[in-house]
Amino acid sequence: MLPLQLQPESHVPLYVQLRDQLRALVHSGDLRPGDRIPASRELATQLGVHRTTVANAYAELESEGLIQGHVGRGTFIRNTAPPLKISPPPPTLGGNGGVRWESLFADERGEEALNRLMHAAPEQDVSFVMACPAEEFFPVEELRNCCNTVLRREAMQILRLGPSDGYPPLKKALVALVRSEGTPAQDENLLITDGCQQSFDLLCKAFLRPGDAVLLENPAYPGAIAIFAGARVRCLGVPVRTRPEPGGSLGVDVSALEATLVANRVKLMVLTPDFQNPTGTTLPVAARRKLLELASRHQVPIVEDHIYARLRARGAKVPSLKQLDRSNLVIQIDSFSKVAFPGLRVGWCVAPANVIERLRLVKQSTDLHTDQLSQATLAEFMRRGLLARHLARMCEVYTRRLEALEEALAKHMPEGTYWTRPEGGMCLWVELPPGFDASELLIHVRERGVLFAPGRYFYFQNPQPNTLRLGFAGLDERRIARGVATLGELLRVAMRKRQRGGRYLEGARVALV
Amino acid sequence: MLPLQLQPESHVPLYVQLRDQLRALVHSGDLRPGDRIPASRELATQLGVHRTTVANAYAELESEGLIQGHVGRGTFIRNTAPPLKISPPPPTLGGNGGVRWESLFADERGEEALNRLMHAAPEQDVSFVMACPAEEFFPVEELRNCCNTVLRREAMQILRLGPSDGYPPLKKALVALVRSEGTPAQDENLLITDGCQQSFDLLCKAFLRPGDAVLLENPAYPGAIAIFAGARVRCLGVPVRTRPEPGGSLGVDVSALEATLVANRVKLMVLTPDFQNPTGTTLPVAARRKLLELASRHQVPIVEDHIYARLRARGAKVPSLKQLDRSNLVIQIDSFSKVAFPGLRVGWCVAPANVIERLRLVKQSTDLHTDQLSQATLAEFMRRGLLARHLARMCEVYTRRLEALEEALAKHMPEGTYWTRPEGGMCLWVELPPGFDASELLIHVRERGVLFAPGRYFYFQNPQPNTLRLGFAGLDERRIARGVATLGELLRVAMRKRQRGGRYLEGARVALV
Repeated sequence: MLPLQLQPESHVPLYVQLRDQLRALVHSGDLRPGDRIPASRELATQLGVHRTTVANAYAELESEGLIQGHVGRGTFIRNTAPPLKISPPPPTLGGNGGVRWESLFADERGEEALNRLMHAAPEQDVSFVMACPAEEFFPVEELRNCCNTVLRREAMQILRLGPSDGYPPLKKALVALVRSEGTPAQDENLLITDGCQQSFDLLCKAFLRPGDAVLLENPAYPGAIAIFAGARVRCLGVPVRTRPEPGGSLGVDVSALEATLVANRVKLMVLTPDFQNPTGTTLPVAARRKLLELASRHQVPIVEDHIYARLRARGAKVPSLKQLDRSNLVIQIDSFSKVAFPGLRVGWCVAPANVIERLRLVKQSTDLHTDQLSQATLAEFMRRGLLARHLARMCEVYTRRLEALEEALAKHMPEGTYWTRPEGGMCLWVELPPGFDASELLIHVRERGVLFAPGRYFYFQNPQPNTLRLGFAGLDERRIARGVATLGELLRVAMRKRQRGGRYLEGARVALV
Repeated sequence: MLPLQLQPESHVPLYVQLRDQLRALVHSGDLRPGDRIPASRELATQLGVHRTTVANAYAELESEGLIQGHVGRGTFIRNTAPPLKISPPPPTLGGNGGVRWESLFADERGEEALNRLMHAAPEQDVSFVMACPAEEFFPVEELRNCCNTVLRREAMQILRLGPSDGYPPLKKALVALVRSEGTPAQDENLLITDGCQQSFDLLCKAFLRPGDAVLLENPAYPGAIAIFAGARVRCLGVPVRTRPEPGGSLGVDVSALEATLVANRVKLMVLTPDFQNPTGTTLPVAARRKLLELASRHQVPIVEDHIYARLRARGAKVPSLKQLDRSNLVIQIDSFSKVAFPGLRVGWCVAPANVIERLRLVKQSTDLHTDQLSQATLAEFMRRGLLARHLARMCEVYTRRLEALEEALAKHMPEGTYWTRPEGGMCLWVELPPGFDASELLIHVRERGVLFAPGRYFYFQNPQPNTLRLGFAGLDERRIARGVATLGELLRVAMRKRQRGGRYLEGARVALV
């Protein structure tokens, strides 16, 4: 039995006590790589705490890389636990190892915010974790033809060092795309990046210093949180309205946003007006105009995350912030990774020319330029009209999947569960009845081969433990139905348990705060 | 005539006064885009200063993007001068423009250090500016076959989101390469990056906070200077010995390095022991061992830039710092961009496992992962033995080019000129007789279609104006001979002028300090 001693009367939450004691046991060597630790239910009984307390401690240790769960086998101390790993001395050259690297690294920079999401997506039967395209529809042959053509036609241009603002044929194709959609842009208004994740990094470097404030939706895309927290920028969160209410619209709470702008010297706002990640909400046009007015009044640039906007499933298209922008304060970031292929790391920014020039310089010192084989291949893919065709097809596919998801939710989820009605994009947001913990539910459904992303991955302030995100784009209708059925079934089990033993629940909620 | 007024009695160097006054004229609108400004000779006569003073002012304004020279036509105010550019209001959406972006950007971050090099390499007849591979030898057909094969065989793996530490087949191929060269490494010791430029960025994020100190060779690769200066890290320079002297070896001055370590809390050292960029010097094995001893004593990690090391032209191979490292303190960075294709942005790091894990997290939040089409293609290129074959061939080509360069220098350069004898790599370093200014020489040779990189691009402290770098790898022997003949001829012209009017030279030297 593990030497654990929790103090219920302490100010330190029980799950934090447990997490820290387990971590200490690993560091001291009492727990060693490969050791199996008790199931959360078992340890909870042993310690006399609610299972959620143990589950939360395990979840944090797992995201730290210290432990790892294996479906059907249990949870184990990882044999590659990063914070403990000392490289083996070079086998042929000798060496004494033992460098204390932890003391040499700069302090933690918040990158874990993204890692726990990306790390949480092992190959499971039904994984709603990621917001990723449907791979089975990748037009592989067409893409291979494009790649072949550009390597026959322009290999020298592709293989030599290129311009930091992007491969000219791709820039040309993207400017044409953006203009055809009604966003005025010229060559000088567009910069190619390695995708939206890099766009965040470049914007952070160009606009923010440590201690500066950035305004984000809360919950938000963890990659944005990771980059800003990593740069020691203060993240100010504005709530996102997930339910239609009188006097307020869906999407980021514009009144709360205004209050944040008034009370703080905000340097940059990052917003996702279309199919927001993770909530799936879309900001109505009136709220967009109000946002732009606020940006203009406070002279705060808006970074508009446009990555999902072309994936509309239903409803009328709403003009983008960039299209509505009369003050020239909107920087739009976009990518091929949702509409085409995430493994090709190519995205772009549309912005005023002097912002592009500043970003170009930052891009140059960050990685010289984006890979040109993918840039050239995607330019050809666009030139042949294949992107437009693929996108149209995928909008149909994702619409069917979204409808299947909603149908399954309506069929299987118990009363008191709420979910958003996205008009497109790749994810839908679920709010369990108050008091239920999505992380706890995750432990149960994972044992049945189903995975989702608990809401805590997306909050950087005031986490709502009863929330979760379902990424539906990568799952066919059959899997969606099966996954949601499992979700509903296990949630009902939890609800019945709750009716039997309410006092545990209170304990769980305390431990979560 | 321009309203310029220089004050020779001021403490401000004349060229700085001139630069600032010209910049002010552009900002005030007295000089407008497209305006031609006087030739340096003409303006020098008009102002009664040495031509070097004008040339230096022009060089700085050019690197700021404010002016641009056109061979045979003169020098003009750029119509896209970045600091002045206001985007045109959106033509279809109205808009008032006029956002003061300069006040919204974070302060300058030093990225110019790299830009002036990359910007200085227009298509000229004979450009020694860049250290880039010979494009005419790119094995295009073989590469296209590899690309085709991987897109037939593993398109799904390539096109979906991938692991942040790299595409597994490429990791495997690189671990095998590195091990075959005698560097012990396993999968956990290697991270794929977008190239060495990105490796610098990741290392900077993982190890350094603003105000921390990094030790660099001075002169150094401008991309390294740009990334560290950009992150507001203090760059401490250690001189590089370019001449064999009694009591000291070529390459970074190890005694000076030790003194810097003793006097400062250095967090990281960045060194290029093989064919250092820009000097082309190679550090002998005894000095490498001494370096490692110092790193161990002070517990300061060494970043070993290994990008040129496989391009040995002559002499015996010296073990890398990583191979000699018994303290596990060396992080080796490497890339395909010199040995294969710079347009494919793929490189790698070899380091202790816990450093790799830290870098992996930083990489993930920086751009998720490196483009997988290029990773998969390069893995196949290696698997088929094509990289080894290409590399062997290019070593022969570059050896011939280096020999041609040395032959031409011996034939054409006047007495008093010194140049290094690189044992490999892509560049050679020239020291003009004391008092001569390479930037001045550049103005003359450019008029004859020849370009090189003046030494000031590489110094971040104590610039030596009489130095320049010749990148020889991308030029055939005929061009090398012609370029050096021009260099020698115009340097002799300058020497004759100097003999006639020594007093100007003093003025020039003052202006340069």
